Amino acid sequence: MTRLLYALAGADKARQFSPHVWKTVMSLAHKGLDYETVPVGFTEIPAIENGSTATVPLLRDGDRLVRDSFEIALYLDEAYPDRPSLFCGEGGKAMARFIENWSQSTLHMAVTRIAILDIHDLLGPADRAYFRSSREERLGASLEEIAAAGKAEVEGFAKKLQPLRNMLKVQPFIGGEEPLFPDYIVFGALQWLRTTAGTKVLEADDPVALWFARCLDLHGGIGHRVTAA
Amino acid sequence: MTRLLYALAGADKARQFSPHVWKTVMSLAHKGLDYETVPVGFTEIPAIENGSTATVPLLRDGDRLVRDSFEIALYLDEAYPDRPSLFCGEGGKAMARFIENWSQSTLHMAVTRIAILDIHDLLGPADRAYFRSSREERLGASLEEIAAAGKAEVEGFAKKLQPLRNMLKVQPFIGGEEPLFPDYIVFGALQWLRTTAGTKVLEADDPVALWFARCLDLHGGIGHRVTAA
Repeated sequence: MTRLLYALAGADKARQFSPHVWKTVMSLAHKGLDYETVPVGFTEIPAIENGSTATVPLLRDGDRLVRDSFEIALYLDEAYPDRPSLFCGEGGKAMARFIENWSQSTLHMAVTRIAILDIHDLLGPADRAYFRSSREERLGASLEEIAAAGKAEVEGFAKKLQPLRNMLKVQPFIGGEEPLFPDYIVFGALQWLRTTAGTKVLEADDPVALWFARCLDLHGGIGHRVTAA
Repeated sequence: MTRLLYALAGADKARQFSPHVWKTVMSLAHKGLDYETVPVGFTEIPAIENGSTATVPLLRDGDRLVRDSFEIALYLDEAYPDRPSLFCGEGGKAMARFIENWSQSTLHMAVTRIAILDIHDLLGPADRAYFRSSREERLGASLEEIAAAGKAEVEGFAKKLQPLRNMLKVQPFIGGEEPLFPDYIVFGALQWLRTTAGTKVLEADDPVALWFARCLDLHGGIGHRVTAA
């Protein structure tokens, strides 16, 4: 096995929760590529592959090292052109950048606020200390203060997904009839919430909830590999 | 000339302001296709082409009639495959649907609230009466009440464009190095505001303002054909 995916892990190595790693898990499944997962804690990342990266996912594919979920997706399409594409053309590669930035700027801070204490609690001891100090410095507030703002985020969360909800009237995936990388981008954000806080933010019959359920079922149901928190 | 673009007009037939028509104006320019504009008021639309459409843009291309800006863009790429593509692949066609719904659900109601009285005032007499009664019924408030909510929208407008602003750190257009149809989708919304209320909602050095200026300059500066209100 020459393909390794370095993936963020909590104290329970099997509880994969990073939104960015999930994007890559789905990308590799979409391409039908085998790999071995190397679970790492936050504080172990700097030592991976001789200090090659400050973040995961990091993919080793033979002698190639690729970091960042978007770069990995681009790499996989380039390296394995005979397998199903993650972008279906140059236009898709460019437009997926908009959707990446939409997901990041619209959903990620909300998930952070809702789930921050749950994320903290599922980490190992060394990672808990790192997570608390780095996030409190970055966000300028204690984890508990950030979590207090999470209550309002739960209420407003479904509304943030209105563009996706409206789009689902036209087609079943952001990729059209079948999923493409931007589906995995938005899936990653919701899977992050599902696997950490497990907070219900969507009604069961919400078209977005139905789309998320379709995504969980993709590629042999790989998204179900981690249960809801 | 066999190509006709039916386009919404105010009392001044040259003041094209419809966001959807602007998407098509830019699409036709992108493809390098000539056409004649047929300006129509709101109340004239039902009589166009023997009642073919309830909305504009409507494109007549020889014996083909195509309505809806997105459908027109798809048609143009299919009918003129040798000219520059508006989507660059099947992935682009699908992802542009997400961006269309993002623009519509995030920007259009805000522009409506900011500009509704300006739009009313630039229409001819018959259209003013139609516009007032149809919009007041649709939105459940008088035009003046809707416009009162516009003040808050001005303040919050720039923030709604954060996904685009962040994406512009990576590439100059939603289409990548060059514009594609989703650039014209978002351009249409901001051009609508520029040509009706003319309200300043972005700082001059905002990356989104610089992107909008690049869009105005495209295709011989066709976006400048109508001055800012």
